[in-house]
Amino acid sequence: MIVITSAHTPEDRVKEIVQFIEKEGIQTHVSQGNDRTIIGLIGRIEPQLAEHLRQMKDVENVVKITKSYKLASRDFHPEDTVIQIGDVKIGGEELVIMGGPCAVESVSQIDEIAGLVKAAGAQVLRGGAFKPRTGPYSFQGVGVEGLVMMAEAGKKHGLLTITEVMTPEYVDICAEYADILQVGTRNMQNFDLLRKLGECRKPVLLKRGFSATYDELLNAAEYILAGGNPNVMLCERGIRTFETYTRNTLDLAAIPSLKQLTHLPIISDPSHGTGRRELVEPMSKASVAAGADGLIVEMHSDPDNSMTGDGVQSLFPDQFAALLQDLSKLAPLVGRSFQVPDLAAVK
Amino acid sequence: MIVITSAHTPEDRVKEIVQFIEKEGIQTHVSQGNDRTIIGLIGRIEPQLAEHLRQMKDVENVVKITKSYKLASRDFHPEDTVIQIGDVKIGGEELVIMGGPCAVESVSQIDEIAGLVKAAGAQVLRGGAFKPRTGPYSFQGVGVEGLVMMAEAGKKHGLLTITEVMTPEYVDICAEYADILQVGTRNMQNFDLLRKLGECRKPVLLKRGFSATYDELLNAAEYILAGGNPNVMLCERGIRTFETYTRNTLDLAAIPSLKQLTHLPIISDPSHGTGRRELVEPMSKASVAAGADGLIVEMHSDPDNSMTGDGVQSLFPDQFAALLQDLSKLAPLVGRSFQVPDLAAVK
Amino acid sequence: MIVITSAHTPEDRVKEIVQFIEKEGIQTHVSQGNDRTIIGLIGRIEPQLAEHLRQMKDVENVVKITKSYKLASRDFHPEDTVIQIGDVKIGGEELVIMGGPCAVESVSQIDEIAGLVKAAGAQVLRGGAFKPRTGPYSFQGVGVEGLVMMAEAGKKHGLLTITEVMTPEYVDICAEYADILQVGTRNMQNFDLLRKLGECRKPVLLKRGFSATYDELLNAAEYILAGGNPNVMLCERGIRTFETYTRNTLDLAAIPSLKQLTHLPIISDPSHGTGRRELVEPMSKASVAAGADGLIVEMHSDPDNSMTGDGVQSLFPDQFAALLQDLSKLAPLVGRSFQVPDLAAVK
Amino acid sequence: MIVITSAHTPEDRVKEIVQFIEKEGIQTHVSQGNDRTIIGLIGRIEPQLAEHLRQMKDVENVVKITKSYKLASRDFHPEDTVIQIGDVKIGGEELVIMGGPCAVESVSQIDEIAGLVKAAGAQVLRGGAFKPRTGPYSFQGVGVEGLVMMAEAGKKHGLLTITEVMTPEYVDICAEYADILQVGTRNMQNFDLLRKLGECRKPVLLKRGFSATYDELLNAAEYILAGGNPNVMLCERGIRTFETYTRNTLDLAAIPSLKQLTHLPIISDPSHGTGRRELVEPMSKASVAAGADGLIVEMHSDPDNSMTGDGVQSLFPDQFAALLQDLSKLAPLVGRSFQVPDLAAVK
Repeated sequence: MIVITSAHTPEDRVKEIVQFIEKEGIQTHVSQGNDRTIIGLIGRIEPQLAEHLRQMKDVENVVKITKSYKLASRDFHPEDTVIQIGDVKIGGEELVIMGGPCAVESVSQIDEIAGLVKAAGAQVLRGGAFKPRTGPYSFQGVGVEGLVMMAEAGKKHGLLTITEVMTPEYVDICAEYADILQVGTRNMQNFDLLRKLGECRKPVLLKRGFSATYDELLNAAEYILAGGNPNVMLCERGIRTFETYTRNTLDLAAIPSLKQLTHLPIISDPSHGTGRRELVEPMSKASVAAGADGLIVEMHSDPDNSMTGDGVQSLFPDQFAALLQDLSKLAPLVGRSFQVPDLAAVK
Repeated sequence: MIVITSAHTPEDRVKEIVQFIEKEGIQTHVSQGNDRTIIGLIGRIEPQLAEHLRQMKDVENVVKITKSYKLASRDFHPEDTVIQIGDVKIGGEELVIMGGPCAVESVSQIDEIAGLVKAAGAQVLRGGAFKPRTGPYSFQGVGVEGLVMMAEAGKKHGLLTITEVMTPEYVDICAEYADILQVGTRNMQNFDLLRKLGECRKPVLLKRGFSATYDELLNAAEYILAGGNPNVMLCERGIRTFETYTRNTLDLAAIPSLKQLTHLPIISDPSHGTGRRELVEPMSKASVAAGADGLIVEMHSDPDNSMTGDGVQSLFPDQFAALLQDLSKLAPLVGRSFQVPDLAAVK
Repeated sequence: MIVITSAHTPEDRVKEIVQFIEKEGIQTHVSQGNDRTIIGLIGRIEPQLAEHLRQMKDVENVVKITKSYKLASRDFHPEDTVIQIGDVKIGGEELVIMGGPCAVESVSQIDEIAGLVKAAGAQVLRGGAFKPRTGPYSFQGVGVEGLVMMAEAGKKHGLLTITEVMTPEYVDICAEYADILQVGTRNMQNFDLLRKLGECRKPVLLKRGFSATYDELLNAAEYILAGGNPNVMLCERGIRTFETYTRNTLDLAAIPSLKQLTHLPIISDPSHGTGRRELVEPMSKASVAAGADGLIVEMHSDPDNSMTGDGVQSLFPDQFAALLQDLSKLAPLVGRSFQVPDLAAVK
Repeated sequence: MIVITSAHTPEDRVKEIVQFIEKEGIQTHVSQGNDRTIIGLIGRIEPQLAEHLRQMKDVENVVKITKSYKLASRDFHPEDTVIQIGDVKIGGEELVIMGGPCAVESVSQIDEIAGLVKAAGAQVLRGGAFKPRTGPYSFQGVGVEGLVMMAEAGKKHGLLTITEVMTPEYVDICAEYADILQVGTRNMQNFDLLRKLGECRKPVLLKRGFSATYDELLNAAEYILAGGNPNVMLCERGIRTFETYTRNTLDLAAIPSLKQLTHLPIISDPSHGTGRRELVEPMSKASVAAGADGLIVEMHSDPDNSMTGDGVQSLFPDQFAALLQDLSKLAPLVGRSFQVPDLAAVK
C-alpha cells in the first residue's frame, strides 16, 4: 500500500504518520517528491489500518497495491476451481448449460420443461420457487412446494437443479432440495445471506449485483469462501447503464477479466443480461466465445402464459435446442467440449 | 395502460389480443394507426396482466399510464405525511437533523458525541451497531451492545435515535432500542426485510439503493406501507455514476422530484452522498435549499481514530455546530424552521 | 404518437389540445381513461410538433410510436446495406478485419505494420494521422503527412485504408487519401462534421459516442444519410459505466440489437472497447459470435514504443495473426466467411 | 508518479525499467514490497512518458500523483479567477444570472424576453442562434441573423449576451456579436473548437460533457487556457445516469469539488440539468447554496409556442422574476451579493 501526503506537508507531520504506521508493525519506505511525500508500506495491511490512514489529516490518497480479497484471487490460488456435482464438472473443460423457467409454477409445468431441457442436452434445471419482485403486488413465487416439484423433476429427468435463495432462513431448506444455490443480483451484498452460505457446503452461484464492480463481486465471493465454502461460481448477468433498449448491459468483458483475477468458474446469463428473447441466442454464443464456463438460460414451454413477466426473455423449446446444437460446434473452437443429442432425437 | 402492436399486425391478431384483455374484465379503446394499432386499457390493471401482455406475440410495447405503487403516491394521498416521534415531527415545517458517528464504538464515545450532537441543536442521534461492509475482513460493528449504548446516550441527552437494521431477525431488537430503523442502500430491495418492517410500527428511514430509480425506491416503500406501517421516510444518499472524485453522485433533484411523486418525508445524506468531509457543508445547505425535510450527517469527535473508514467523511464537532447555525438561517428562506442554541453556549 | 393528459384534466382543455393537433392536419383518436385521457395521433408527426405537445400545459407525457430516424431504419430499408470498396464488401457474408496502429508515426512504421496486417489476412489498414486527445499536452498526430504515408503503405500492400477525420475542413483531404473515413466517439454528435460527411460519397465508419444510446447513434447516422451519403457503417466501441477495470464496457448486445433496428453494417472495436491487450482476443471472438460484420483492432509491431498511450491495448503481430486464424474457423459457425493465409506463410 | 510492477517481476527487469526512466532525466526511488516493486518518479513527468510506462511489460499500474492539467489547477493559480465584462464580474462576490430562451426566434421574441430578463434583475441574456440537435429533422436555429437580433436586444436593455458556438469557423462571427461564447455539452471535447477559442480573447463558458469527469472538464479548459485565453468559466449542466425521470442528473457536488480543484468560476444550469420546469426553482436555489458563481436559466415568454422542445424546461417570466427575488435573499447567506429591482416595479 502507498500513502501519499497532501502537497507541502511539513517534514515533522510526515514523520508522525510514518511513526504511526511503524507502531503497527509495518515497515515503510519514504520517498520525497517535489511537493508530496510517498510512503510505501510493506507487507499485508489490515483493512482497518488502511481505512485509518485514508482519513488521517495530511493524507491525500491511499493506493492499494494488493487486493482486498484473498481466497478468491488467482494470485492466492492459481489453478482453476472445478466444482464437481455428480457427473457434472463446472469450471473444467465441459461447457455447462442451465436451462428452465423463471418461476416454478406447477408439477406439470416443471416436469414438461425438465424433459425439454434434458432432451436439448443441458445438464442443470433452473427455476425459482421464491421470486424477488420490485413491487409488492407482483407474483412472489409458489414457495417451498416449488422446491419439491423441481427436485422431483430434476431427479426424474437426470438433471441437477439450481434455485435462488433469498434469505438466510431459507438456506437450509433450499440446500436440502437443490444442487446449486443461487444468490440473486439484489442480494449480492446481503452479507448475512453470504455468511450463511459460507457455513453451508452446497455450491453457490453468486450473481453480480447490477451495479457492482468486479472488485465488489469478488469481495462478496470472499464472504462465502472465508466462511469455509469453497464451491462458489460467479455469474455475469448485466449491469445498469443509460441504455434502455436492453434491460441491462451484458458486460461480457467481465468473463475474461474475472478469469484473470480469480480461479472461480464464470457463468453468463444472457436472458436477464438482455431482457429480450431475440438477443439470447447471439449473446449466448458471444458468452461462450468470450470464455464462459457455462450459461444460465431461461426457457419456457409456453412463455405467453408464464406467471412472471420474464416470459419476454424466455426461449421457446425449439430455440433452446437449436442454440445448444450450435454451442456444441462452437465450444471446441474455444477449447471446450459440449455434447448434445442428435437434434432429430430431440424432436 | 396502452398496448402497442408490432408494425403490420393483422387485424385478426389484434382482435385476439383485445378479446384476451376484455376477458380479464378490462374495457378497451382501439385506435388504428398507419402501421401499428394502439389499444388503450381503462381502469386499474393488475401487474400480472401487464407482464402477460408485455410478452405476448405481436405486442411491441406496453406503456404504463398509472404508477405501479399506490399507497406511496401523492395521487392517492395528497397531503404530506408527517411522522411524529415524541416532540419531533418529521415531514412538517421543522427541519430535522440527525447526527452522529458511522459506528457506535464504546459507551464513552457515543455519550460524548451525543452531547455534542444535542448541543449543536440536532434532534436525532445516528450510529450503527451492525455495519454492512463490502469485504469480510472489515470491522462489522459492535452488535447488540451498541444498541444499548446508543439508547442510553439518546435518553441521557434528550435525543431520538436512529440505527440501521440489516436483517429481518434483528428488526424486533432494533425496534426495542431505537426510535427510527434505517434500511441501508444495499438492502433497499431486501424484500424480506421490507416485509418485516411493514409488520413493525416503528418509523423507517429507507435509503435509496445506489443504483435505484425513483420508481424502484417508491416500490420498495410500498412494500413497507402495504404491510401496514405508514411511518416511512425516504433518503437520498447518492447514486453510482462514472464520476470517481466523489464516492457517489448526490442526486439532489431527487428531493423536489420525490416531493411531487409521493407524500413521504425526504431526508438527504450528504456524508455518504459525497464521501468527502469538505463537501458535506455545501451539500447540506444545497439539500435544504432543494426542499429536504431533514439531513442525516456523520459527525465524530475523533474521526482520525474512528473504527470504520467513514471518518474521512465525518464532520468535526465544531464544523457540525457551525453548519447547524447556518442552516437555522437558511431554513426560513425555504419555508422551514430550525432552532439552534446560541453558538457561544455550545462552546 | 400518443399524448397522455395529466390526471383530471377537464374535458374542455382536452378538446383544446385535440383541436390544436387537428389544426396541424393530424387525425386523432381520443380514449377516456379513469383519470387521464389518451390522445392517439395517426400518421407521421413532425419532430417540432412532438416537441410542442410535450411542453403543453396539461400534457403529462408524449409517447413516440414511430422512430425519429427514417433512412437508417430497417422498417424503411429492409435489406442489409452492403458497402463495396474495390473487392471488399462490408456488411455481406465476408467478415472484414481492419488492423493497424493507433497513430501513424513514420513511413517505416506504417509500412512494416501494413505488411504484417496484410500477411495476417486482414483487408483494411487503420491508423490515425490526427489524434483527438483529452489533454493539450499529449501527442496530437503527425497530420497530413500521415495520410500520405498511410495511403502509400495501403497501396503497396494491397489494403484499403481507414483514418479518423476530426473536423469538417479536413473531410476533403482525408477523402482524397483514405478509403473509409472514421468519426470518433467524441465527434458522434459533431453535427457539422456529420453534415459535411453527408455531402461526401466516401464510406464512413461512425463510432458510437461513449455515452450514446442506440437511438442517438442511429440519429447521428441519419444526418449523414439524409445528406445523401448512403455508405455508413456503425461501430460499437464501448460505453462509459461505473466499472473501472476495463477502460470502457464493450456493449456487445448492441450488435444484434442494431441489426434489428437498422440495415447498416456493424463493426466492433474490442481494442478501445476494453483498453487491455489481453481482453482483445476473447472480445474479438465474442463480437463475431454476436454477429458483427467486422472488427477494427489495434496492432503495433513495437507497442512498448508507440507514441500514444494506446500501446497498452495493441496486439503484438503474432497475436493478431493467431487471432485471425481463429476467426477464420469461427466465422462459418455464424454464417460468415473469412479466408486467411496459411499461418506458416505468415511467419 | 508511481510505477507499480507486476507480482514477482525479476530484479533485473525492475532495473531495466528504472534505467529507462532515469535515461529520461527523471530521478527515482525504488521500494521493494513483498510481491511487487514500487518505483517513485520525482518531478514533473511528460504525459507521453506516463503513457509509455503504462504500456511497458511487467508494469501493472501507474498512479499519477500530480494532475494532467496545470493552468486550470488551483495549485498553480491559488486565487479565484474573476472575469470582468463591462460592469459585471463573474467569479467574484456578485452572483451572476443569465436568462433567456433556448433559441432566438425573432426580433420581437428576443426583445420582449430581454426586457423581462432585465426587469427581473439578471445581468446576461442567453439565446441560441445555432442549435445542436440530435436528429437532422429538428429545428436547427435561425443562424447569423439570430446573433444580430440578440446583440441588439442586449444593447437596448443593458444586458451582456451569451450564445453557443458550435464549430471553429463561427468563432469569429459569434465573438463579434456576443459577450460570452458558450461551448455546448456535446462539444466539450471538440478539440479544434477549443483550440480556436484559445486564440480568441472573448470569455468562454465551457459546459461539462454529459458524461465527462471533472478531470476531463478541466483538461478541456486547459486547451483554451493553454491557447492563451484566460477567460474561461465552467458549467455543470447534468450528467447522464440510469435515472430517466429527470433528463439529466444535476451533479451539484461538482460545484464545491471544482472550487477546490480549480480557480475558474463555476456556473450551474438547472434547466438542462433537470429538463423539467418545476425542478428549476429548487435546483437553482440548491446551486447557489452549493456555492455556484452564477446560473444560466431558460426563460420564455410563451414556452407553449417555443420553436424547440426545450419549452418544457423554460420558466415563465413571473416564475423567473420570483426566483431572482428569492436568490437575492439566499445569496448573502453563502457570502454572495445579488441585487434585484423591487418586485412591484417588475410588474
